Amino acid sequence: MSFQKLDELGHKLESLEHALSILGADEATHMASGGGEKRAEAMSNLAGMYHEQATAPEIADWIADAEKAELTEDGARALREFKRSYTNATCLPTEFVRRRTQATMLSEQLWRDLRAKNDWQGFRPALEGVVKLVREEAQLRADALKLAPYDALMDQYDPGNRVANVAPVFERLKTFLKGFLPEALAAQNRRLTERPLKPFAGPYTVEKQRDLGLAAMAAVGFDFDHGSLSVSHHPFCGGVPSDVRITTRYRTDEFLSSLMGVLHETGHALYEQGLPPEWAHWPLGKARGMGVHESQSLFVEMQLAHTREFWEFAMPLVHQHMGHDAMRGWEVDDVLNRVNHVERGYIRVDADEVTYPLHVILRFELEQDLVNGKLEVADLPEAWDAKMSEYLGLSTLDNPKDGPMQDVHWPGGAFGYFPSYTLGALMAAQQWAALEKAVPTVRDDIRQGNFAPLNDWRRENIWLQGSRWSTPELMERATGEALNADYFIAHLKKRYGA
Amino acid sequence: MSFQKLDELGHKLESLEHALSILGADEATHMASGGGEKRAEAMSNLAGMYHEQATAPEIADWIADAEKAELTEDGARALREFKRSYTNATCLPTEFVRRRTQATMLSEQLWRDLRAKNDWQGFRPALEGVVKLVREEAQLRADALKLAPYDALMDQYDPGNRVANVAPVFERLKTFLKGFLPEALAAQNRRLTERPLKPFAGPYTVEKQRDLGLAAMAAVGFDFDHGSLSVSHHPFCGGVPSDVRITTRYRTDEFLSSLMGVLHETGHALYEQGLPPEWAHWPLGKARGMGVHESQSLFVEMQLAHTREFWEFAMPLVHQHMGHDAMRGWEVDDVLNRVNHVERGYIRVDADEVTYPLHVILRFELEQDLVNGKLEVADLPEAWDAKMSEYLGLSTLDNPKDGPMQDVHWPGGAFGYFPSYTLGALMAAQQWAALEKAVPTVRDDIRQGNFAPLNDWRRENIWLQGSRWSTPELMERATGEALNADYFIAHLKKRYGA
Repeated sequence: MSFQKLDELGHKLESLEHALSILGADEATHMASGGGEKRAEAMSNLAGMYHEQATAPEIADWIADAEKAELTEDGARALREFKRSYTNATCLPTEFVRRRTQATMLSEQLWRDLRAKNDWQGFRPALEGVVKLVREEAQLRADALKLAPYDALMDQYDPGNRVANVAPVFERLKTFLKGFLPEALAAQNRRLTERPLKPFAGPYTVEKQRDLGLAAMAAVGFDFDHGSLSVSHHPFCGGVPSDVRITTRYRTDEFLSSLMGVLHETGHALYEQGLPPEWAHWPLGKARGMGVHESQSLFVEMQLAHTREFWEFAMPLVHQHMGHDAMRGWEVDDVLNRVNHVERGYIRVDADEVTYPLHVILRFELEQDLVNGKLEVADLPEAWDAKMSEYLGLSTLDNPKDGPMQDVHWPGGAFGYFPSYTLGALMAAQQWAALEKAVPTVRDDIRQGNFAPLNDWRRENIWLQGSRWSTPELMERATGEALNADYFIAHLKKRYGA
Repeated sequence: MSFQKLDELGHKLESLEHALSILGADEATHMASGGGEKRAEAMSNLAGMYHEQATAPEIADWIADAEKAELTEDGARALREFKRSYTNATCLPTEFVRRRTQATMLSEQLWRDLRAKNDWQGFRPALEGVVKLVREEAQLRADALKLAPYDALMDQYDPGNRVANVAPVFERLKTFLKGFLPEALAAQNRRLTERPLKPFAGPYTVEKQRDLGLAAMAAVGFDFDHGSLSVSHHPFCGGVPSDVRITTRYRTDEFLSSLMGVLHETGHALYEQGLPPEWAHWPLGKARGMGVHESQSLFVEMQLAHTREFWEFAMPLVHQHMGHDAMRGWEVDDVLNRVNHVERGYIRVDADEVTYPLHVILRFELEQDLVNGKLEVADLPEAWDAKMSEYLGLSTLDNPKDGPMQDVHWPGGAFGYFPSYTLGALMAAQQWAALEKAVPTVRDDIRQGNFAPLNDWRRENIWLQGSRWSTPELMERATGEALNADYFIAHLKKRYGA
């Protein structure tokens, strides 16, 4: 009976989520330019209704009652996830949420303005205010969840992830990368001397690029009965599992960045489309977390679409949709040299597979210290610069815009999120290794454009699991061992090594 | 203070309406084919939340309290419209609404199936059930509004419209049309003998038709900062005033039907875009009613875009966007002969300006008798056939699919709506006459592509009035006299007469 009430609540919340997701995707794709103000008001009011319904005090009683009842195993898991959602939604007092929302909104606005002006001193007080509130939030969450403060923040994004487990894995990866990066750059130099980068034979029309993107999506398993591709300024995967909206953007001088972006978002989309539909209105039926989600996008983009086998399949597809002249004189190795290019840089979002984790680990280390009070915002530029110099050999002291001011996460109050990106890369590599063990023919399958075995394995081991397990449990069940850096390191050695 | 509460409620209801409108438009334009089930569930739950919030018992107290306060004139009008909405939303018991929704949903589904099979006897019991419920509903609304039953139904669609006023106007129009239709057909025959219909020089690509449609929308005043054009199976005007979504469909053998459809929907859109933005979250700020809305679409489509002056402006636009060969050998008269073609037919939605009102008046007469119990569903085919034979000289006895089964309105329980179509045509003609009095140069303006004076007049007299007046009051204030058939009759004589 109490479970029934939770089930009914789930349907109502799913409907509000549905509206918010579609309105959000629509805003970035089809909304008229002058529709933004009313859209923001509508979404804010709907989010308020969601919060009000999701935090109603009687839900605590329903959960307590349901815990006394006999439940199936999945029923018990569903209840645990209802409780997790409720705890996360109610552990911050309304008054605090209001203060925090106001502070982060202002800080984000200020950041947009002052980042462009490279004005760290002007921005610093706002970030100090945010960090103060984040420390408060971390403590409130820690008390509610009986976790350490930074663990409590991470737990929002990937339940079960703890510094005690993540830090050693990152430490090992960092040590490896610091030594490996110069090797990889040297190997790349040798390869590029033998085979210089081929020029693009553009311009490439948006229509043809769109056709190619759609064909690639279809090939790797995107279900067009339950999703679509549009254009937006920033690519994303949004919508709802029954109607997943992914987007890309096009430049006409080359077509690989849009194609790879489409494949990245398709990875996210396959996860959403593959979730267990019968639980769609329960927390149990949602994607597990941001790290797992990123593992699905990186699986398609990096583990699959950056391989030789994939491009043996994909070259004819490019010819078919873009014309035979689109890649005049290119061989598979020319594509691989393009998409697997490594370069030291300041900016995380522009980084490649080898340097990206160093950007993330830097932030992971710094934000722990910020949350735990070991580092103050005033000392951030120096701390950032020290790590940046050590990990990537680049100094950002005179350029805060490309240093600690480069990401929206901290100005927006999102601490504990950064690790997800690199955890996703590690998980993707470990899943790929497990898949190759389970389906030894997978590379041949890919060469022949048969992506079903690869998707079947992920459907069963990842997608259909929804939120039945914590992130570490999910990985251990899917791959047979706890998350570790071995597979990702082996993958990097194979792809970028001498 | 109570008014403040109504104001806050207005913001919440506007947000839910916003979601429902955008989700509805999205469903018909961008939604993936398999997204329908979850979309229906989400919209039904959001509609439930809307109903729950719009009918909360405390609202009655807020209204009663606010009525005791001192209000500005527009404040008093705003309160009257809040009260009208509340009365209309609460006058049917929840149990009755549930029964009616179930019956009309089933009847609509059955109608879709059995209309295709031309099976009146199979469908009859379902319609009898609906009519029984509609009689009950009309009585419930009549009691709440202190109106006659059919007036209470009509009042939902155009507040203030009463049989006592509408029936004599329709009677005069019907008498005129029965005599005029043969004259118009004879005149048309003479015209077509002198100037036979020119063939279309298609095919016309969708891209070029879309460009032409966009250019025509922009010319007549559509604000693309607050709206857009897409494709859907059935054209509509949806969305919200800050982001109006209109749609069209294309055939490639001719381009006039899509262009005229776009202009019709643009008429609706201009009304929505022109509503008073400061009252957008109050009932006072909404479009007045369905008849007034139709007057705005028919104003653009029929009063404006079927004229010689408009086509003197539009011919170069067609050449510019479709190429000079698109209308090879056509003159303005050839376009007018196409768009102003008159023909007796069975189907209301395919009817022209001259025959359309006869289809509506037939339904208006029959549905009054159905609601008032003077006619039973069993006798409907004969009653329909008798009027069809008298008004249009066509018999439908052996073809119920194109007779009383042709429209979705009655199977869906919408009685009292049909008059709006023809009231819209009458209002549009009367508005045009008032406009020509106020702006004597308007035909020259149109010829030169200057639509501002025409829109300024409507903005001031119709759009910015929102729901300040009942439909008859709005017309009288805008045109200086009560709604009558004179202007529409004069218009038909001028356009279609000998």
